Amino acid sequence: MKLKNPLDMHLHLRDESMLKLVAPLSTKDFRAAVIMPNLVPPLCDIKSLKAYKERILKVSNDNHFTPLMTLFFKNYDEKFLENAKDEIFAIKLYPAGITTNSENGISNFEIETLKPTLEAMSALNIPLLVHGETNDFVMDRESNFSKIYEKLAKNFKNLKIIMEHISTKTLCKLLKDYENLYATITLHHLILTLDDVIGGKMKPHLFCKPIAKTYEDKTALCELAFNAYEKVMFGSDSAPHPKDEKECCGCAAGIFSAPIALSVLAELFQKHSNQENLQKFISDNACKIHNLSFKEDKIITLDNENWQVPNEYKNENEKIIPFMAGENLRFQVKS
Amino acid sequence: MKLKNPLDMHLHLRDESMLKLVAPLSTKDFRAAVIMPNLVPPLCDIKSLKAYKERILKVSNDNHFTPLMTLFFKNYDEKFLENAKDEIFAIKLYPAGITTNSENGISNFEIETLKPTLEAMSALNIPLLVHGETNDFVMDRESNFSKIYEKLAKNFKNLKIIMEHISTKTLCKLLKDYENLYATITLHHLILTLDDVIGGKMKPHLFCKPIAKTYEDKTALCELAFNAYEKVMFGSDSAPHPKDEKECCGCAAGIFSAPIALSVLAELFQKHSNQENLQKFISDNACKIHNLSFKEDKIITLDNENWQVPNEYKNENEKIIPFMAGENLRFQVKS
Repeated sequence: MKLKNPLDMHLHLRDESMLKLVAPLSTKDFRAAVIMPNLVPPLCDIKSLKAYKERILKVSNDNHFTPLMTLFFKNYDEKFLENAKDEIFAIKLYPAGITTNSENGISNFEIETLKPTLEAMSALNIPLLVHGETNDFVMDRESNFSKIYEKLAKNFKNLKIIMEHISTKTLCKLLKDYENLYATITLHHLILTLDDVIGGKMKPHLFCKPIAKTYEDKTALCELAFNAYEKVMFGSDSAPHPKDEKECCGCAAGIFSAPIALSVLAELFQKHSNQENLQKFISDNACKIHNLSFKEDKIITLDNENWQVPNEYKNENEKIIPFMAGENLRFQVKS
Repeated sequence: MKLKNPLDMHLHLRDESMLKLVAPLSTKDFRAAVIMPNLVPPLCDIKSLKAYKERILKVSNDNHFTPLMTLFFKNYDEKFLENAKDEIFAIKLYPAGITTNSENGISNFEIETLKPTLEAMSALNIPLLVHGETNDFVMDRESNFSKIYEKLAKNFKNLKIIMEHISTKTLCKLLKDYENLYATITLHHLILTLDDVIGGKMKPHLFCKPIAKTYEDKTALCELAFNAYEKVMFGSDSAPHPKDEKECCGCAAGIFSAPIALSVLAELFQKHSNQENLQKFISDNACKIHNLSFKEDKIITLDNENWQVPNEYKNENEKIIPFMAGENLRFQVKS
């Protein structure tokens, strides 16, 4: 199976020794990836963002990889955004405190407060990426955020709003109700429900935000992805945490799926859909939505060849347990 | 504050070095406790049950402690039950595979299959204790089991059925609908919701079955407990697991609350209810429901004195992290 220009539209690469360990695992498989800005401190200026981009490119093992950089949302003025436009792909909005390193996020969603920045973004055609969760009961957080998505979609009709890593049928439906709403879907939300996370033993390596939800929610997500609905794109939300921060008394949220994403998607789409739809989900939809093109194409070959997911990925400082550690997969990416 | 004959109507003491570590922490505070039979292998005969009772008494640090022994439910014949009656307090039914060491539980809930045993138990006035969960979606397991509770309650009107560690408003309501249904309520289900378990970081030491549920569910449980509703009794479901089996890649279910149960209940009832209701919840209700009395009373004194919950309890082989480790409590049990 061959895939043209696979894109990971939502990726956490972290920094320093973790960046060195995880970046090559994404850059070898993907043509480009949208890089999340929730470092410590978050990326809020162009100098830091360009320096981070350079660090990413330096540790990439592939020249044909484009990091699509994002700024951490705050109220930026129009002049700043005009200057930033050529360096950034999008701006990522986090509600304050909702996930890893989001303490500096937004707690006031009043339209008047957000208006100057969002209108400038609309005018400059800078997409807004959103981690859409309230601080309500964990199973309701995403559904309850739909009111804010609706408010944003109605008030900023020319703003391209990407609902990131959607996990509920509520947002699957909302996507179809507003022209300017789009979504990314992760690999793990196509596979997991809350039963996998806490229904048997409790599994820290399957713990993520938004949490995996019900079977109905998973079915709605699979329907969009496997039919390659034109407003959804693949975004792994691959989020590495050191083993010690996962297997402890207070486990950090995030699933590290980057090294297996293409293999597992190939297997899922072979079983439930087809290669054409996978090509749309993994690349073509995103290219259309964001008007993306690449000077040099990257063709990824997936061979029908069994391999076992490593039990861990590590370097001298870091040790990470990947999603589906130790499991047997049927497609292997050929380098 | 003084409490007369506190009873823990649902307790896991395990065996061997774990038994040695945890038993004294319950026997010092409680006059009696209902001891769960899910050892490996489960307690299904009187010889094993009596030997286990002796092991418990041997490691108790208090002569005024009565272990109320239970058998693991299977289809027993009438003659066996007649002989067993004087040695057992009740029989505990586990659906197969639903929680720790429940592999030998029941998978067929047809009335005809259960009838001989349950009718003999009714005739001999042996209560049936039930872990009421189906193998459905984790948040629905207890509510969905209510149909089985109804079937049992309707078909065996003279059988005393205790719905163990109830965690949903569905069962709080059901309790009032059938005369022969009773319930135990844990400490942790009066305190936790799913938000505490997976809403921030993921907390293995707050992971239990049935899982803590919604705020509405918790409110319904608190209403029953704090009003000392006559059909509910305290049962800690304190269930120790070694630290290494909690903080790992697949954490076992169970919260170890025995050493702090009375202190925390005193604080909760002082805030939300009163001492009279605590006395009912912790002892009097159970004595009435089960017609229990003790030759020698045990009076427990709780002083209004700050203390800090230890970060761990350990002996040469075992290390356990207790519920509320490191937290400050306002009432201390005086020995």
